[in-house]
Amino acid sequence: MKRNMNVRFSDLSGGLFAETGKADVGEGADKFQKAGGDNMAWADMFYPDPWLPESVRDASIAVIEEGISSHYTLPVGLPRLREALAEHIREKDGIEVDASRNIIVTPGSDSGLLFAMMPFLESGDQVLVPDPGYPNNYLNCKLLGAEAVHVPTYPEDNYQIRVEELEKRVNKKTKMVVLTHPNNPTTVVYRRENFEKLAEFMVANDLILVCDQAFEDHVFDGIEFVSPCTLPGMWERTVTVCSLSKGYGLSGYRIGYLYADDRIMDVYYGSAVNVVGAPCTISTYGAIAALKDKTILPAYKEILDRRRCIAHEILSSVPGVRMNRSESGILSWLDVSRLGTAREVTDYLAEHAKILVNQGTAYGMQGEGHIRIVTACFREEEEAVKRYKRIADSLWQLAEKKSIIT
Amino acid sequence: MKRNMNVRFSDLSGGLFAETGKADVGEGADKFQKAGGDNMAWADMFYPDPWLPESVRDASIAVIEEGISSHYTLPVGLPRLREALAEHIREKDGIEVDASRNIIVTPGSDSGLLFAMMPFLESGDQVLVPDPGYPNNYLNCKLLGAEAVHVPTYPEDNYQIRVEELEKRVNKKTKMVVLTHPNNPTTVVYRRENFEKLAEFMVANDLILVCDQAFEDHVFDGIEFVSPCTLPGMWERTVTVCSLSKGYGLSGYRIGYLYADDRIMDVYYGSAVNVVGAPCTISTYGAIAALKDKTILPAYKEILDRRRCIAHEILSSVPGVRMNRSESGILSWLDVSRLGTAREVTDYLAEHAKILVNQGTAYGMQGEGHIRIVTACFREEEEAVKRYKRIADSLWQLAEKKSIIT
Repeated sequence: MKRNMNVRFSDLSGGLFAETGKADVGEGADKFQKAGGDNMAWADMFYPDPWLPESVRDASIAVIEEGISSHYTLPVGLPRLREALAEHIREKDGIEVDASRNIIVTPGSDSGLLFAMMPFLESGDQVLVPDPGYPNNYLNCKLLGAEAVHVPTYPEDNYQIRVEELEKRVNKKTKMVVLTHPNNPTTVVYRRENFEKLAEFMVANDLILVCDQAFEDHVFDGIEFVSPCTLPGMWERTVTVCSLSKGYGLSGYRIGYLYADDRIMDVYYGSAVNVVGAPCTISTYGAIAALKDKTILPAYKEILDRRRCIAHEILSSVPGVRMNRSESGILSWLDVSRLGTAREVTDYLAEHAKILVNQGTAYGMQGEGHIRIVTACFREEEEAVKRYKRIADSLWQLAEKKSIIT
Repeated sequence: MKRNMNVRFSDLSGGLFAETGKADVGEGADKFQKAGGDNMAWADMFYPDPWLPESVRDASIAVIEEGISSHYTLPVGLPRLREALAEHIREKDGIEVDASRNIIVTPGSDSGLLFAMMPFLESGDQVLVPDPGYPNNYLNCKLLGAEAVHVPTYPEDNYQIRVEELEKRVNKKTKMVVLTHPNNPTTVVYRRENFEKLAEFMVANDLILVCDQAFEDHVFDGIEFVSPCTLPGMWERTVTVCSLSKGYGLSGYRIGYLYADDRIMDVYYGSAVNVVGAPCTISTYGAIAALKDKTILPAYKEILDRRRCIAHEILSSVPGVRMNRSESGILSWLDVSRLGTAREVTDYLAEHAKILVNQGTAYGMQGEGHIRIVTACFREEEEAVKRYKRIADSLWQLAEKKSIIT
């Protein structure tokens, strides 16, 4: 029946008939782990070890014990959750948003990202997507009939956006810029001066910005984190996509949210039942507890800050590896181009270190020669460090094979 | 920024700026209930009373206690859940499906329904939609750029599909039929002989069937329930959309699923991360427990069977009301056309009975003069019956006003 499908979907790869399944979809990762390997390819804090903050645990159990977890909340999100999110936005962005007019809760930020893009795109539209970036940024365009136009960013600029690269590619078909900020996979935070230039460009060309900030909750080294919706002229043209998955380590809860001007939000409210349905009720109450527990983010930040430093120390010492200390979140991004292609290096690590990591090429053309490692895996630092060392050992072997060691 | 939106979304109504919000999206229902009114417009068994089967409760708490509810399962659904669903499908449809190739779990069946339709539709396509039917059947087409072509069904046929009405409307642009079976709002079950004719029509015109079976778990009076995917020529062209929300009373868990031929499923697997993300982890384990607990469905069926009989007895006695006993599920469907328009009657009930019910017009053009009542609301039969009587009393008043009483 593929002949009855539209071209946006009919040539998708990575499904059942793909030679190698996507690590994050098929059962490949599951099999790999059952055979004794480790999965450091899922952006899921402390995975696979058990861990849940007590406040979230208690609130989750309470709503089950009360017997109301069987019922719907609201497709746009329970008012109490939206109020807690409004407070969170006030704290992080310094802006006042109206919980009943500017926020919608989504079942995770993946469906939230597609939903954010959906009202604006149609066949023939073009979307400017900084590369490297989150894989869905590209594929979502295709699924919506639009074309993702890759806009390269460069390590020598610390992956900031070159507005001249946007200027080169903008045309009458351009509708939107989709951005992952902080960036996934590079962990880079776009700086205020970079965003000011971006904002000018956006306003001048009357474009929509969809800004996925799933990794915003942990930024290191005192780097300023700016939500672009707070810049002049940007509120009315920005949809901000967020999540409790990364910062709060609650991937399994599937709570994301969008915030935007109410003239945009109107349309999300009007189509929420169709596109995303309602969020899970237990997760709703768990998320309220997480947002109200002001100890979670600082505690996790301390852990993650140590992790990225240790990972950097161990991995950057390998000959042929170039990397910076992560600026944010739960990932490390390594230039391994002197050791092989992204595919060669990840295959080597799967075989020799018995660890799954991500090929940089999944994140765009600028990802060739790079790998992404979820350095926040495993609850105990010691366990994580063991794996960093196993990766480093294998990369050393590769360096020897490539005669990089001098 | 609405001027930057595509026409599929830019003229949506029912959002923030709508004069009256949709009962199931905005905060209208919440305010109504806080003012002492009752909401019998949400298809949520026993709403708003607390209730959860012990098996589901225990499994939900166990996964929280284990501390793994914070982690992802799989975007396509945990293998153990898909295996439990394969067993459920075997029991209900009598067919063998492969848990690893034919099933995908979705966060509820609303996003599941849109996802099911998405690969097949694009701008200019037409979809045949029996009317009355679930509102999303129509709006989803629009959101995907296609046109929903209403195909009237008639009470005098017990709302079975007239294939000649399909024949009249099919053309080169027709790609799909979208069906809610058992029907929402009418509760009618399409009979085998009706589906056999439909199947011939589908095959002859090479169309895709998306069949939403959210209400399939409770069918009364020994009426045979046939999943159309089991008919000759239909498996390869049918996507079946199901849910644990209605039959198992687990709306708040947000667990739906699609099943289809693996050549279709390949595409859902390949785009699951983009479109629906992953299902909630706690809900996943709760759903496994629900499916394995063979006492839930029979116990609920007994309750629901009594409800629809009592509701019918009370409501059909009102002069000017025409209705049949519900054939399935948790709803009752009333022809109140002699008492007023759907809007007039629901407004009257909201004001005088203090009960929210659904206007038939939400379900299509054939819904004018009708109302839908979720007769499965409230845990205690006695409480439900009180409301049926309040509705009946108000309808009597309307009948008196309209001088229908003779």
